[in-house]
Amino acid sequence: MKSNTLRVALIGSTGYTALEVARLLLVHPQAELTVATSRADEGKPLSEIHPSLAGRCEIALQPFDPDAIAKQADVAMCCLPHGASAQSVKELADAGLRVIDFSADFRLSSVELYEHWYGVTHPWPERVGNVVYGMPEFFADQIATADVVANPGCYPTSAIMPLAPLVKAGLIQTTDIIVDSKSGVSGAGRSPKLGTLYCEANEQIAAYSVASHRHGPEMQDLIQRISGSEVEVLFTPHLTPMDRGILSTIYVRPTDAAGSTPEAIAEKLMATLRQTYLGEPFIHVVDHLPSTKHVATTNHVQMTVRVSGTSNRPGRAILVCAIDNLTKGASGAAVQNMNVMFGMNQSSGLSG
Amino acid sequence: MKSNTLRVALIGSTGYTALEVARLLLVHPQAELTVATSRADEGKPLSEIHPSLAGRCEIALQPFDPDAIAKQADVAMCCLPHGASAQSVKELADAGLRVIDFSADFRLSSVELYEHWYGVTHPWPERVGNVVYGMPEFFADQIATADVVANPGCYPTSAIMPLAPLVKAGLIQTTDIIVDSKSGVSGAGRSPKLGTLYCEANEQIAAYSVASHRHGPEMQDLIQRISGSEVEVLFTPHLTPMDRGILSTIYVRPTDAAGSTPEAIAEKLMATLRQTYLGEPFIHVVDHLPSTKHVATTNHVQMTVRVSGTSNRPGRAILVCAIDNLTKGASGAAVQNMNVMFGMNQSSGLSG
Amino acid sequence: MKSNTLRVALIGSTGYTALEVARLLLVHPQAELTVATSRADEGKPLSEIHPSLAGRCEIALQPFDPDAIAKQADVAMCCLPHGASAQSVKELADAGLRVIDFSADFRLSSVELYEHWYGVTHPWPERVGNVVYGMPEFFADQIATADVVANPGCYPTSAIMPLAPLVKAGLIQTTDIIVDSKSGVSGAGRSPKLGTLYCEANEQIAAYSVASHRHGPEMQDLIQRISGSEVEVLFTPHLTPMDRGILSTIYVRPTDAAGSTPEAIAEKLMATLRQTYLGEPFIHVVDHLPSTKHVATTNHVQMTVRVSGTSNRPGRAILVCAIDNLTKGASGAAVQNMNVMFGMNQSSGLSG
Amino acid sequence: MKSNTLRVALIGSTGYTALEVARLLLVHPQAELTVATSRADEGKPLSEIHPSLAGRCEIALQPFDPDAIAKQADVAMCCLPHGASAQSVKELADAGLRVIDFSADFRLSSVELYEHWYGVTHPWPERVGNVVYGMPEFFADQIATADVVANPGCYPTSAIMPLAPLVKAGLIQTTDIIVDSKSGVSGAGRSPKLGTLYCEANEQIAAYSVASHRHGPEMQDLIQRISGSEVEVLFTPHLTPMDRGILSTIYVRPTDAAGSTPEAIAEKLMATLRQTYLGEPFIHVVDHLPSTKHVATTNHVQMTVRVSGTSNRPGRAILVCAIDNLTKGASGAAVQNMNVMFGMNQSSGLSG
Repeated sequence: MKSNTLRVALIGSTGYTALEVARLLLVHPQAELTVATSRADEGKPLSEIHPSLAGRCEIALQPFDPDAIAKQADVAMCCLPHGASAQSVKELADAGLRVIDFSADFRLSSVELYEHWYGVTHPWPERVGNVVYGMPEFFADQIATADVVANPGCYPTSAIMPLAPLVKAGLIQTTDIIVDSKSGVSGAGRSPKLGTLYCEANEQIAAYSVASHRHGPEMQDLIQRISGSEVEVLFTPHLTPMDRGILSTIYVRPTDAAGSTPEAIAEKLMATLRQTYLGEPFIHVVDHLPSTKHVATTNHVQMTVRVSGTSNRPGRAILVCAIDNLTKGASGAAVQNMNVMFGMNQSSGLSG
Repeated sequence: MKSNTLRVALIGSTGYTALEVARLLLVHPQAELTVATSRADEGKPLSEIHPSLAGRCEIALQPFDPDAIAKQADVAMCCLPHGASAQSVKELADAGLRVIDFSADFRLSSVELYEHWYGVTHPWPERVGNVVYGMPEFFADQIATADVVANPGCYPTSAIMPLAPLVKAGLIQTTDIIVDSKSGVSGAGRSPKLGTLYCEANEQIAAYSVASHRHGPEMQDLIQRISGSEVEVLFTPHLTPMDRGILSTIYVRPTDAAGSTPEAIAEKLMATLRQTYLGEPFIHVVDHLPSTKHVATTNHVQMTVRVSGTSNRPGRAILVCAIDNLTKGASGAAVQNMNVMFGMNQSSGLSG
Repeated sequence: MKSNTLRVALIGSTGYTALEVARLLLVHPQAELTVATSRADEGKPLSEIHPSLAGRCEIALQPFDPDAIAKQADVAMCCLPHGASAQSVKELADAGLRVIDFSADFRLSSVELYEHWYGVTHPWPERVGNVVYGMPEFFADQIATADVVANPGCYPTSAIMPLAPLVKAGLIQTTDIIVDSKSGVSGAGRSPKLGTLYCEANEQIAAYSVASHRHGPEMQDLIQRISGSEVEVLFTPHLTPMDRGILSTIYVRPTDAAGSTPEAIAEKLMATLRQTYLGEPFIHVVDHLPSTKHVATTNHVQMTVRVSGTSNRPGRAILVCAIDNLTKGASGAAVQNMNVMFGMNQSSGLSG
Repeated sequence: MKSNTLRVALIGSTGYTALEVARLLLVHPQAELTVATSRADEGKPLSEIHPSLAGRCEIALQPFDPDAIAKQADVAMCCLPHGASAQSVKELADAGLRVIDFSADFRLSSVELYEHWYGVTHPWPERVGNVVYGMPEFFADQIATADVVANPGCYPTSAIMPLAPLVKAGLIQTTDIIVDSKSGVSGAGRSPKLGTLYCEANEQIAAYSVASHRHGPEMQDLIQRISGSEVEVLFTPHLTPMDRGILSTIYVRPTDAAGSTPEAIAEKLMATLRQTYLGEPFIHVVDHLPSTKHVATTNHVQMTVRVSGTSNRPGRAILVCAIDNLTKGASGAAVQNMNVMFGMNQSSGLSG
């Protein structure tokens, strides 16, 4: 083991976000995976579940025992499903671990909103609305001292990052926001299902959960938390034939404050985004149209703005934002949060 | 040769739409490919350019000679690039052939609109606005007697088919239409370019020509021609990692006439679409969310409607439409047009 | 219904080969799908299981009742799993239907060989070795009068077609044959499994069942049946990131009879293959190196020969053969067999 | 700039291997990209050519000026095409830089062999046969002091690593070796060509350069250099629809020394490979069948052995080896070589 190293426990180790955590920790200079748990595969080497780790990360899967884990680790990354996660997070926190929760269980502001969208009774309702949202670009101070961090959803990250600063600056209308997102298939998880079989998902694109996906309310909730303004978001996700990545094409209406020609509006919106993310190592406001490939396997975000219409009649602003759903959309953000929680450089282990 | 067979000439034979024409004619019971031209590959077998035709379609590539072609064919499918096509169409028509033009040269209503968007001087301006748009679902009578047919663009087909009937029925607002389209890579053609190399286009999705693609005005022009109402369309195409297919996710605002709850609006819009396309062999208004895979390599179209919002506050209608860009979006539509032009069943050769 | 139409029953309708049968019958001028059975989805429309059939093939799924099926159909295509199939084939045949069996249950020559490789007791052992192998290029006469036809395996088709004629002609050594095959993922079926999830099978290639796949003995058995010579085949299949297609790269040693220079050997082998398949509508001996894309979604086969070594020291012959695993490797071959069984043109419905 | 950092110049910066070098250096703790040259794009930011570097590596492209480069860098990674590279390598070495050459110009043992296979006159023939092959697993001592290193070919790496130790140990016959390799499309480079367009390379697999690819002689030459035994390799590469990765399936005949049952032979071969690569950080002899996905974007190699036949009649050994063609097959190997040349830990910057 590296000396003076932060010890990380992975709770729920069989999915793609868990593998991505393990991959990222392999290059982290100050942190190391010391525990990995799995209910179903206890005792097996982690590398049997994820053969890409063969010879590179040879730890055995343990059962979920919070006290035992607390002796072997400083922080827990909890990759359990929505609903099941909250109880485990509570037990890990009670055992003295700081916890980064990948589920949606602590992301929303209210128990009512959560129970409406997730259809389950929340096992730790008193903490809901009282857990920091793990987006260091906006909440670094709270993350630094948090015992529990709610790691953001992948789609919300791709929408909040370009939208929140523009809403906050009063440059776009709050009631006319359309987020059309395209995600790689890894976002659907690693459990065998018909819809994510290769021959179903390959060579096709399709919308799903139209106007009813749970990440819509998460976007609204967080943009409001960041900007102070209530917003209405129409969100449509699409399953796209690629392993990784999310591209969100976002249609908004500029307010009068944004300018009166397409060029002026685009410039104003770009300047606001550039100013917001000045000095942020992962957020890049770019002139070109971003592709998911530009950010694949990295914690980086690329975004840009275009404005339609003519000089005397500007139309909509189109925001385009690309992230990697498994890195900045999940495990990379978690490592970034961990870095902030433990006083390390927030880019540590994430420069690739 | 099959007897009593319609003889088809392919003008410009090296691209994907040309191959798709050849493929479709192989199964057509009443038509046959008798001529294929190519400037660059004259004399070579067509199957050398398209090895999938080896042993199945063994004709040699000819130079472009309208009079010679007129002796060997009844109809010409002109797969030349925009700008170059119009002159050839004129010469083929003058030589007595009926012509189906795959380019955009005769799709738009006015020379001004064409020259603004395509940046070239039109070689046959007197015919612009005077050529039928090859969408038999709306213009079958004119197609039946036409000397020249303007074969529709791929993106426009996927937008016009769900939008035009709803605009015509006054069910959606005409100034707030967003078309977010996702296309397979074959839409970008077969000329080697950096952006369509496998390793550039694979495992990525990206928007391009945002608010500036030529198919936006084509959509507007045709929806107006069909519905009688001027419309404003904001169109964003995306390059998607798959060979074929277009999925258009279309965001519109229902008018009061459409109903007052999401359910009522969805029902009204679906009923209108079903009524419009009753008896049309290729247009399917479906309950499920269509995928491009459902229509791949066929001339079929699948579309559906969802409506957002709550019962006392309905939101937008989301129209989802899937086509195959090379079949219904190009060569299948051309065969369908040919069938109508020559009095055959419009599904002939297209039932697969 | 088309008049004077052959009525086809599909037994086991949820998989990819079943969908491919339905797709092919849509364009068949003399046959029609009249029955589709499914144990799990009885009563549902077939198009609910396969949404690409929406509006194109609207029959409801029935239970498996041989007598009822015999009243509605002339021929049954049995797409059940190995082991389960034989019993159903027996019942269908007893009810008076002619049957094309997609499973391996009647492909091998002996019950011993079958039970060794498939690990089950054969439910109809007396018919084993007494059912024609459905490869009309070699067994058309027997197929024409058969009550039951054993439809060939996909990998075996890609190996037998180039190998059998060369073994029969004594041009290659029988004990040194290596078949390295690469298959699209649809060959693994439509049941959700970890290994065929998109994110597992995409962007990767891997060998499986090395030296132990059941199609190795099927190749040996059939090459011997066709050529009269016992052969030894080392077979390695690979899972390739594509929906469809099999490419087999086959390494053999020419005998002295084949010639003494690489050029002479290649010419001799190519001539023998061309002679064997003269007049066969689906088998193309080509000069170029075949790709699976050249034959995708068709019943066609492309094959070629290369020979290594120098003029005074020729090396191995490399045979390359491409098929579509779902068409010529399964459902296309079944339709071809059906055509032969019922006295139709063997290409009927398969010219695309 | 990091202090005490090795300064790296990238010569020829527009291709995929150049991007991979830049990507790897971003995470290297002791090295940094200080120079990038390009003839065609001089003056542009490197991130304009490779948009994934936006905000992450903002250096401008320079012309090729060896003396100027020598002032800014300690080592040059030369990513120029075969033939053109040798002259530049000479000039860079003359200017005092240590050079890692990605081309084949210095890989082979003799000028004759090179000129036969590459069809050009070698511009620096006196160095041919006198440049170390950059495979630290076998030549670390020579690499440590080399002025010029010939970075290995991608296919050869995947064949030499499993074959050379077994030939050296006398466990496999030297005249009967077949290497059937499957490569991702990035191996074909980034210049627009018909064959590597998305719609040509997607959803297909095909062999190319059968029995005539230049990497065959490179394999033979190096296996001989490492093992001391002359070998004969029949090599067939295949273009596989994925961005990255090479899987080589290798068919060999065990000698009597290897054992007399399939199990004993497999054990002996595996033990020999494990022994050879004991302590090597990147080479993993595994029990499972390796997939290219297991090693994607890493410098790791996975290999295994299977043996066919029966206990009294063993057949061939099948070696399966997976690498990432851009990392261990090119740029990762180059960084590994650089680490050895400059006395750093050979894994530095390559642990991901």
